[in-house]
Amino acid sequence: MKDKNYFLRKAQENFPELNYTVLTPDISEFTASSGDSVILDLGNHAVGHFSFSFDNVEKFIDAPVRLIIRFGEDMREISDDISQYNGNVSKTWLQEEILNLDYPQKTEMPRRYACRYIKITVECTNFPIKIFDFKFTASTSADISALAPSDTKDSLLNKIDCVATNTLKECMQTFFEDGPKRDRRLWIGDLRLEALTNYYTFKNLEIVKRCLYLFAAGEYNNLGFLPSYVFETPYYNSGAAHITDYALLYVVTVCDYYEHTADIVVVNDLLQICKSQLDSFEAILDENLIVTMHDGWFSFIDWCPGLEKLTALQGVYLYTLERFSELLKAIGDEDFKKYSSLLSQVRSACKKHLYDKNAKAFINDLDKKQFSVHSQIWMILGGVISGEEAKKLLIFSLDNENAKQPVTPYMRHYVTEAMLKLGMKDNAVQYLKNLWGGMIDLGADTFWEAYVPDNPDFSPYDDRKGNSLCHAWSCTPSYFIRKYGL
Amino acid sequence: MKDKNYFLRKAQENFPELNYTVLTPDISEFTASSGDSVILDLGNHAVGHFSFSFDNVEKFIDAPVRLIIRFGEDMREISDDISQYNGNVSKTWLQEEILNLDYPQKTEMPRRYACRYIKITVECTNFPIKIFDFKFTASTSADISALAPSDTKDSLLNKIDCVATNTLKECMQTFFEDGPKRDRRLWIGDLRLEALTNYYTFKNLEIVKRCLYLFAAGEYNNLGFLPSYVFETPYYNSGAAHITDYALLYVVTVCDYYEHTADIVVVNDLLQICKSQLDSFEAILDENLIVTMHDGWFSFIDWCPGLEKLTALQGVYLYTLERFSELLKAIGDEDFKKYSSLLSQVRSACKKHLYDKNAKAFINDLDKKQFSVHSQIWMILGGVISGEEAKKLLIFSLDNENAKQPVTPYMRHYVTEAMLKLGMKDNAVQYLKNLWGGMIDLGADTFWEAYVPDNPDFSPYDDRKGNSLCHAWSCTPSYFIRKYGL
Repeated sequence: MKDKNYFLRKAQENFPELNYTVLTPDISEFTASSGDSVILDLGNHAVGHFSFSFDNVEKFIDAPVRLIIRFGEDMREISDDISQYNGNVSKTWLQEEILNLDYPQKTEMPRRYACRYIKITVECTNFPIKIFDFKFTASTSADISALAPSDTKDSLLNKIDCVATNTLKECMQTFFEDGPKRDRRLWIGDLRLEALTNYYTFKNLEIVKRCLYLFAAGEYNNLGFLPSYVFETPYYNSGAAHITDYALLYVVTVCDYYEHTADIVVVNDLLQICKSQLDSFEAILDENLIVTMHDGWFSFIDWCPGLEKLTALQGVYLYTLERFSELLKAIGDEDFKKYSSLLSQVRSACKKHLYDKNAKAFINDLDKKQFSVHSQIWMILGGVISGEEAKKLLIFSLDNENAKQPVTPYMRHYVTEAMLKLGMKDNAVQYLKNLWGGMIDLGADTFWEAYVPDNPDFSPYDDRKGNSLCHAWSCTPSYFIRKYGL
Repeated sequence: MKDKNYFLRKAQENFPELNYTVLTPDISEFTASSGDSVILDLGNHAVGHFSFSFDNVEKFIDAPVRLIIRFGEDMREISDDISQYNGNVSKTWLQEEILNLDYPQKTEMPRRYACRYIKITVECTNFPIKIFDFKFTASTSADISALAPSDTKDSLLNKIDCVATNTLKECMQTFFEDGPKRDRRLWIGDLRLEALTNYYTFKNLEIVKRCLYLFAAGEYNNLGFLPSYVFETPYYNSGAAHITDYALLYVVTVCDYYEHTADIVVVNDLLQICKSQLDSFEAILDENLIVTMHDGWFSFIDWCPGLEKLTALQGVYLYTLERFSELLKAIGDEDFKKYSSLLSQVRSACKKHLYDKNAKAFINDLDKKQFSVHSQIWMILGGVISGEEAKKLLIFSLDNENAKQPVTPYMRHYVTEAMLKLGMKDNAVQYLKNLWGGMIDLGADTFWEAYVPDNPDFSPYDDRKGNSLCHAWSCTPSYFIRKYGL
């Protein structure tokens, strides 16, 4: 097995080139006294660095000037009262700076922001000032010129595709970020969906490879699971979280990569890690081959409040076993038999132990017999049921008010995938239009981290102001539209 | 007469070299969670730029960190509640920044600060951080190695001399600043006293020359008076104020410069400007040769609240006429006769029109018959009275509770000068010990802009927090101690 330095070197070799574009907002200059403010509009979401100049108008300012500069991914973030923030992610994610400037100068703000709107408030000046020369230097590692338009004839799907590719573009920086406002890091769950969409849009294979190696270099936890996220700035640091469904989806991401590249070198580099993830997962199964509670791991699945996750997680395991067995078979690795055999056994176990005949749905005793869309979708994706039975269950759960429903485009990706797996193309199109189109109706330039149609203030963090409005895991409509010719 | 470009070029030719010293505070590192703070002590007042690093302790910070960094010239500025600021100079002079830092990094703060103490408050971090590598890069154009110790045998005078030279050193940057915290500009009133003290301490003649040329390049007002201050950053800008006593003292500063350098080139460059200042002043005299109210000018004299200034201003005029006549005579300029003659006439006029025989003091009807130390001192310095009569008047006014008293070391410089002119050496020593020594008793590392012994919260700006605690015009004890061998 290769070591950490090898993986970091490979990640570095695949460092993507960032493309920079200088954007100018709708307003070119602004004359202001104390208390005046202006809102600049870049016309679209952008990720990058802001600079401006200011000067005296007639009289010399005579004392330092204080400006408050707010960056908003949408207009609500511009008008929010951020002193009233009650979220459980840090208030430092809210994008606002207070600048004291001694004299007329060009100011290049050092931090990177994610925004469409920029509000400048002149908090204090002795004499009027002119603020001008607004420049936002946007960055992305996506190559826009490589992006063909989608073939869809449906105008709403076309709009959705445009916003989805925009979302992916904004998240493609030196690696696939989850969100350029927050958390600005590489998470496995986002990586898998970004990579998938990237194969059908920007086709930047280098960045996928790089991200796979970045995880390979991470610190595993005591159960052998990969870290769920990594940082690179200012130095490589693998995250403290070890989410089991993410560890499994790393393996799926390697399978996807091979499917789209046939790059056997990368697969060989990562094969042992993939096997170790499945083996670590096997170790947390009970005697019935059902995943059971255990210290030291947790799962994500979705941000749905109160969601019980064991059944869904079991489905992610099956989904991964199937994909990995196929990969092993394709590359001639004899272990494929072992994993294929395990796949069959675990599928049978799920049918036997997780299907509740009374409820006519997948329910796990350990999950407090909770009925959720998530459990049904992952059992379908795990191949435990299929055909008409699966279709009925899928529709029944989505229409059922008592069922726990997805709240993130991340989980909705897998709902859509299940629909397409079952041949429910019309349902998938309608689902995309309702759930991603709904964000467009609300003015989205990029797709959001979380979206609940009847609750625009929904937040996984107890305060909407902490939400990311440009989130990688929401970019997959382009994958579906382009791959399935929707 | 030379033009503006010539004067600016001469100013540029005499740009002083800044000497940098990297200071490290008493504390070298600090581990902190949200809400923790530390106060660093540089051991003495310093002017310059602060840098520091921070890093994770165990866990990655996981979100940007917010720090509040406060710079204080003394400890009160560190503990002040600056949200309760009611001063009439801008609140932006209060030295505090809020920094959001995305990840562990070295931060070099871009602004220059004047401080001894630095308080760092960790306003928000998800996990404990370590802050370290504190560096304060102090600057001055004073050459410390050129400074000989004073010859005084008196330990308090020696202390006063040390604090005074420290004050001057801190204000010597690319020009003679009034105060490095506020206003950070070149004022004539400060320049004259800094230049005087500099001849006896750091002996940097280049910077004096430079400052004289900077004023020469300024825009005169409609009455022909020089601007009272200039800025240089980011481009040359002469101030909107045209203070008549400062315009006159510019002439005195040129006289002082010639006295200490015999540099006839500079004097020839500035001679016409000096004459024009005296001629402009002559134009605002009434038929009795007494300065009268007129639109378009005002005078400073001192920050004493409610002070009437015409009599004192008249004394500044006499003082200037005397010094300038001497200069003209020394360089063989025939105009010396004109100014000498004017000096005699105006002196006689003052005796006749400003001396109140009942009050036995100088009082101007236009000054609402106000009795002030200021009027007496400037009449003495203007040579209107002398000898025992003058000594009595000086002591009487300083001891008189009904007399307006000086509140700034600036005005107290001229009180001390009057004492020494009258041979009152013991009084001068006692005065220095009381008025400058009093600041040392209160912990001053540098002398303050304003000081009223029985009112430590006195401020010319309605709020002590706006005061400068390192102010150029307070540095002259070193001049007196060294020139007069006190």
